[in-house]
Amino acid sequence: MAKASGPIPVAIMGLGFIGREIARAALASPELALVAAVDSAPSLHHKPLAELVPGAPKSLRVEPDAARVLANLTGGVLLHATGSRFEEVYPQLEAAARCGVHVVSTCEELAFPWLHFEEKADALDRLAKSRKACLLGTGVNPGFVLDRLVATAGAVCGHVRHIHAVRVVDASGRREALQRRIGMGMSEDEFARRAEAGKLGHVGLEESAALCALGLGLDCDEFEEDVDALIADEDFAGVVPVKKGQVAGVYQRARGFLEGRQIVELELTIAAGVEESYDLIELDAEPKVRLKVEGGYPGETATAWAVVNAAPRLLSAEPGLLTVLELPAGR
Amino acid sequence: MAKASGPIPVAIMGLGFIGREIARAALASPELALVAAVDSAPSLHHKPLAELVPGAPKSLRVEPDAARVLANLTGGVLLHATGSRFEEVYPQLEAAARCGVHVVSTCEELAFPWLHFEEKADALDRLAKSRKACLLGTGVNPGFVLDRLVATAGAVCGHVRHIHAVRVVDASGRREALQRRIGMGMSEDEFARRAEAGKLGHVGLEESAALCALGLGLDCDEFEEDVDALIADEDFAGVVPVKKGQVAGVYQRARGFLEGRQIVELELTIAAGVEESYDLIELDAEPKVRLKVEGGYPGETATAWAVVNAAPRLLSAEPGLLTVLELPAGR
Repeated sequence: MAKASGPIPVAIMGLGFIGREIARAALASPELALVAAVDSAPSLHHKPLAELVPGAPKSLRVEPDAARVLANLTGGVLLHATGSRFEEVYPQLEAAARCGVHVVSTCEELAFPWLHFEEKADALDRLAKSRKACLLGTGVNPGFVLDRLVATAGAVCGHVRHIHAVRVVDASGRREALQRRIGMGMSEDEFARRAEAGKLGHVGLEESAALCALGLGLDCDEFEEDVDALIADEDFAGVVPVKKGQVAGVYQRARGFLEGRQIVELELTIAAGVEESYDLIELDAEPKVRLKVEGGYPGETATAWAVVNAAPRLLSAEPGLLTVLELPAGR
Repeated sequence: MAKASGPIPVAIMGLGFIGREIARAALASPELALVAAVDSAPSLHHKPLAELVPGAPKSLRVEPDAARVLANLTGGVLLHATGSRFEEVYPQLEAAARCGVHVVSTCEELAFPWLHFEEKADALDRLAKSRKACLLGTGVNPGFVLDRLVATAGAVCGHVRHIHAVRVVDASGRREALQRRIGMGMSEDEFARRAEAGKLGHVGLEESAALCALGLGLDCDEFEEDVDALIADEDFAGVVPVKKGQVAGVYQRARGFLEGRQIVELELTIAAGVEESYDLIELDAEPKVRLKVEGGYPGETATAWAVVNAAPRLLSAEPGLLTVLELPAGR
């Protein structure tokens, strides 16, 4: 029941679309005080933050020097939105931890980095502990709809035999970067090539599957992920136009197995022309659970608030590399 | 990421219907070891627990002496299911805390005892802290559907303007004690008399409303609760038969206000002949949330598992009187 004594100093690193949404949410949160913004793009350096994020204090400019920002943020929280891949953002996370700065990051692979980078994750965990810093990867997905909410939904169930969760997102009218990332308007061949190279689709679905299993006390010894193109059966106008026969979006599936038996199945559709956006959780357990979020949690806003609402929680958590499974229900 | 080193010793106190469900769940949980059972009813004393809870170890008998059970349980967890009212169970909670025994209780008012018993709640909190014990009130309702799940559903939202949640439970075919408690088969007059005396209906709805507000970072300065009879428009056969014109069940509403403005509204219907059982959460926030649990969480099983799954969490929590808002998402 303890209350913090005042707003928590936070800085935003990475001022792309999501980073700006996070900055906006941080400015609106009574729990946080946004004290700095940093981005590596020279075109943004020294720009007033208010030009990117309306309402930001006039005193804030985009700083080029991350090291200086971190050095002044010890005990505060870095809101981090620079990339999806753990190994790419690792030096930034390491630098923050070394300064005793807590981190909440949208890096999808940081949601459960032990899945693919066990040694590096353990090293970062040790470093964070030694500097009394907490690091957490979250957002709406991974970090909430297909993992934290699933674990919570099963918190009043006995042994869970199977976890099934579905997220369907209508990509029409979404921002161009997202439409490109799901292959909209591509030929099937181009989609296949780019998917093969790991340059398409949503990052973090396998991480969510691993979190689901862990959060409900289950073990998986194998994970599998498929990425498939969904083909448009009509034309869609828009920022990224799609013609009939071209790719309308992506269908991804991550599955977790124990001794060959499927324990977790997560399905994600992000495409133009879906009939209905929604999130669905089905647990085969005692009692059975079927929970549906009508309309689904929207990606960008919910991700920004996931990050901003998690930030104060890090100050009372045990130091180290955390997962969303350790977050309490309440603010 | 730390794992406990072995099953946690637990004892069950109170072997009514819910207590037996909890004992059954505790026996099925790989995290817990049921080491004792205690009840104040002389008719149960020294009975083999297996007669009440099939599958219980032959060595366990119902013990009359709570003090002896608690003295042997220091560091373990008491699963407590003896009553709904905080002041009635207070001496039992106090005795457990004095022995350094953690408690998870189905006592509905313990879900948020500060609402009606601030001084006693603070005293119990201080005692628990001094003996390094954690005390928690939970179940499916209060403790989950209309509070913990609501707070979690809003964990990725900005400022919440209004919280609305609904639980509808079909009471047909449920146990007799529950049917009596919702007034089934009574006249409207009798219902009104018993409701007035606080002897009817569900306990804990206002506590859930308070937890909703707290869990989503809102303040309420006033709470109100109504209890109304629902009248049968046809006959219902069953353990407690209901004739047309008699009471079919209860409709309760708890509301929380800040400066006269409604912030929280919780609606609970438990009655024979409802069209559909379900749980629904609606948050007016950015983003808006509408989450529905089809069929609703069933009362008894989910309460038993809520208690059993919470027990191991107490061992790594800060000592004191906790709420479900402090529980992590994962097991």
